[in-house]
Amino acid sequence: MMKVRPVEKSPGVNLYEQVANRIQSLIEERTLQPGDRIPSVRKMHDQMNVSISTVLEAYRLLEDRGLIAARPQSGYYVRQTLPFSPQEPTPSTPPGLACRVDTSFAVRINTALREPGMIKLGAAVPDPELFPINALNRLMGQVLRQNPELCHSYNALPGCEPLRHEVARRLMDAGCSVTPDQILVVNGTTEAMYLSLRAITKPGDTVAIESPSYYGLLEILESLHLKVLELPTHPRDGISLPDLEKAFSRGQVAACAVVSNFSNPLGSCMDDARKKELVELLERYDIPLVEDDVYGELGFGESRPKAIKAFDRRGLVLYCASCSKTLSPGLRVGWAVPGRYQNQVEQLKLSTNIVTATANQLTIAAFLANGGYDRHLRNLRRSYAEQVLRMTQAICEYFPEETKVTRPTGGHVLWVELPLDLDAIALYDEAYRHRISIAPGSMFSASGNYRNCFRLNCGLVWSPQVEAAMKTLGGLIENQVSEQTRSRPLFLA
Amino acid sequence: MMKVRPVEKSPGVNLYEQVANRIQSLIEERTLQPGDRIPSVRKMHDQMNVSISTVLEAYRLLEDRGLIAARPQSGYYVRQTLPFSPQEPTPSTPPGLACRVDTSFAVRINTALREPGMIKLGAAVPDPELFPINALNRLMGQVLRQNPELCHSYNALPGCEPLRHEVARRLMDAGCSVTPDQILVVNGTTEAMYLSLRAITKPGDTVAIESPSYYGLLEILESLHLKVLELPTHPRDGISLPDLEKAFSRGQVAACAVVSNFSNPLGSCMDDARKKELVELLERYDIPLVEDDVYGELGFGESRPKAIKAFDRRGLVLYCASCSKTLSPGLRVGWAVPGRYQNQVEQLKLSTNIVTATANQLTIAAFLANGGYDRHLRNLRRSYAEQVLRMTQAICEYFPEETKVTRPTGGHVLWVELPLDLDAIALYDEAYRHRISIAPGSMFSASGNYRNCFRLNCGLVWSPQVEAAMKTLGGLIENQVSEQTRSRPLFLA
Repeated sequence: MMKVRPVEKSPGVNLYEQVANRIQSLIEERTLQPGDRIPSVRKMHDQMNVSISTVLEAYRLLEDRGLIAARPQSGYYVRQTLPFSPQEPTPSTPPGLACRVDTSFAVRINTALREPGMIKLGAAVPDPELFPINALNRLMGQVLRQNPELCHSYNALPGCEPLRHEVARRLMDAGCSVTPDQILVVNGTTEAMYLSLRAITKPGDTVAIESPSYYGLLEILESLHLKVLELPTHPRDGISLPDLEKAFSRGQVAACAVVSNFSNPLGSCMDDARKKELVELLERYDIPLVEDDVYGELGFGESRPKAIKAFDRRGLVLYCASCSKTLSPGLRVGWAVPGRYQNQVEQLKLSTNIVTATANQLTIAAFLANGGYDRHLRNLRRSYAEQVLRMTQAICEYFPEETKVTRPTGGHVLWVELPLDLDAIALYDEAYRHRISIAPGSMFSASGNYRNCFRLNCGLVWSPQVEAAMKTLGGLIENQVSEQTRSRPLFLA
Repeated sequence: MMKVRPVEKSPGVNLYEQVANRIQSLIEERTLQPGDRIPSVRKMHDQMNVSISTVLEAYRLLEDRGLIAARPQSGYYVRQTLPFSPQEPTPSTPPGLACRVDTSFAVRINTALREPGMIKLGAAVPDPELFPINALNRLMGQVLRQNPELCHSYNALPGCEPLRHEVARRLMDAGCSVTPDQILVVNGTTEAMYLSLRAITKPGDTVAIESPSYYGLLEILESLHLKVLELPTHPRDGISLPDLEKAFSRGQVAACAVVSNFSNPLGSCMDDARKKELVELLERYDIPLVEDDVYGELGFGESRPKAIKAFDRRGLVLYCASCSKTLSPGLRVGWAVPGRYQNQVEQLKLSTNIVTATANQLTIAAFLANGGYDRHLRNLRRSYAEQVLRMTQAICEYFPEETKVTRPTGGHVLWVELPLDLDAIALYDEAYRHRISIAPGSMFSASGNYRNCFRLNCGLVWSPQVEAAMKTLGGLIENQVSEQTRSRPLFLA
């Protein structure tokens, strides 16, 4: 019977997380194989000399990570995981030149991504099944009954107090100590980003961004007549700070915009040290940053990562988030913490659409206050972790072996990199004919890079349809591969 | 017993409207005095040789206009109307120069206008009492129950079909034949105006507007770094077309923006001939116009005035409206018909906040479809007509005789012009100390005009509090007058 070394307490990481990591590495090294029964809680407690409850916590965490599953009356087993673990994409190396944005391509695709009757592997849209719809509707009914006049009147800027209060409370988990007065309620993260970028730039300015970067951000930048500087980005650690500093020191950029946690599309998550370093850079060069943290609460680990805003002492970080990935995109409720730019952002909100719908704000506030948000979030994170795992498994099974894919530790998107000579746009067109949508890599670049990449949405609950779609997709890629080979001129063979 | 001449049918005007106008003029000439019983329906039918139903229609219209009231078992009586009819303000004559906008003053005031615990005679906010809140809440509950997933998902641009269908149907009353596909759903009229102006201008452009002009519009123009050309405007007929043509022919302006019906703040309403002429101007010079028609359904007459859009054949008019003055500002639902600029406006909507909340759209759609909108609108128009009348009466009673005030034929705002040496900003400060808010005239001008004017909101249901506020306001004005007199140097006396 396999013996597991005791863990020696190391600071920073919770003990149960250390235990979980130890077991995970055993699974990754195939010491524990899929289907194996893992040592009972009591055994593990003896072997690692940690408390029973610590072992239970660790097992729960491993369940969250989709690595083990409990079988009633029989203990925990290693789940069917990856037949081989696919390579990660290499860090990006975009051309270091500021350029105008043209999203006409992204727009055409994006429209198609939202078409009904498609299997939506393109748009990063969560499955409505995963949202607490009944609870939200019940709460909205209460809100309407309890505040009839309020719900049908303008609320005053910066938005309804109960929501701002709850958001401030939640932001403490992200390491931010902000008061409700510092929070502005808006219509979703996009509006938060849009108003923030508008407040800190003027047409013609250049904004430093990750590469690849969320096409929604590119659309905002284009609509504001801004140029972008796409910077090298690591699939795990995010934007390259040395390159960012270079851009700062050359006075190339007026602002920057990043997704801090479980970014879209790479899934990268900066660690605290890099977040701190980033903020120091902002302070040294006095350059503002727009932080998109819409995925921040969707980590597969136990503790929510800090926001960049947590390290911001001079109000240079404009924090943006919403409930669109956790509770309901349809209610269109989000928030911004614009730091020293609060007045400008509020004034822009006023002249853009005055305020956000009252009942919608109060409904989200009510759910955060007493709708069992933590329990819901726990299940949601577990589902996303599971779906990301299943999609990765499907990639291993159905896609060519050279396929590279990211290993996000949160969120619900995967970034897939195909061999260089494959064309994800052609693949998109093929898939579209099969009523499957994917998001071609070129959508995520202002300079038309990543033609051989695409983003996969793992927001859908795993189902035979989704698996079939992945299989079809794999087949379409294989076809391209074989065509490529056929079409290669002989003298090159 | 007074005899009423028969009416001879004149084309264009409904017969019952002619009858009503005839009786109204008898009231205005004091032939029929307040408290007088007006001839019975049967008498009137004989005297004017029109059908009984026509007379009834006419009386209903006069009731709507707040001129007569029915007493059970005793017939119709002339209501207490104006002790004297106050002078109208003269058409405005702003300086004919394009200028930058600075709304910092308006912003400061506007914030105060929305403070709780104030008697809101400043902000043009309707009394929530006037909205069908219970019906809306019931419908929203149904909408949530019947479309649980849809309500919590993104809807696709240009917005939910049921709402666009109802809006298209309603726009027929405004003389517009538009299809649902030509309508874009947004968050209120402000967003419609904002996106429209953004689509047709670039920073530095000049936009021709009415003077005085709604401060919300000025805030939008400022936020887009646009200059404004304030044009002479008639308190009844609206913007001066000759001056507009002059500006067009000199190539001074890139676009214009007007409130077509029952404008805010003047209450002016262009007649069809002028609307047609305006559109011909736009076509001749190929200049787009943003039409704010948020008050279009709030006329005191029987038939809804046409929109400028009704005469638009080349898609140069970007039509904007919402349900914020008729059903609920709190739901934040509005719409735009951007004509030939539809793609640009939709793209801007996408990058500003993607789409408008789904449940909110479907709730308004449900009310328009089967919530008894017409009945509601009828009562609402009657209330506004009555409140405008009562406010005017209070002005006659409590304000100095030199006071001039507009005679809007719809909407719920009055524009008050005081003698030139009075200061409405000082008055605002005084009133504020008495917890009464008014909107000083300077808010409605980019060039700081109208310091002796202010706007009164008649959206509040008439009450002793409102009357007391008007009395206080009158007192404060009288104080200023007497101070002025005292402070006049002797040699001028």
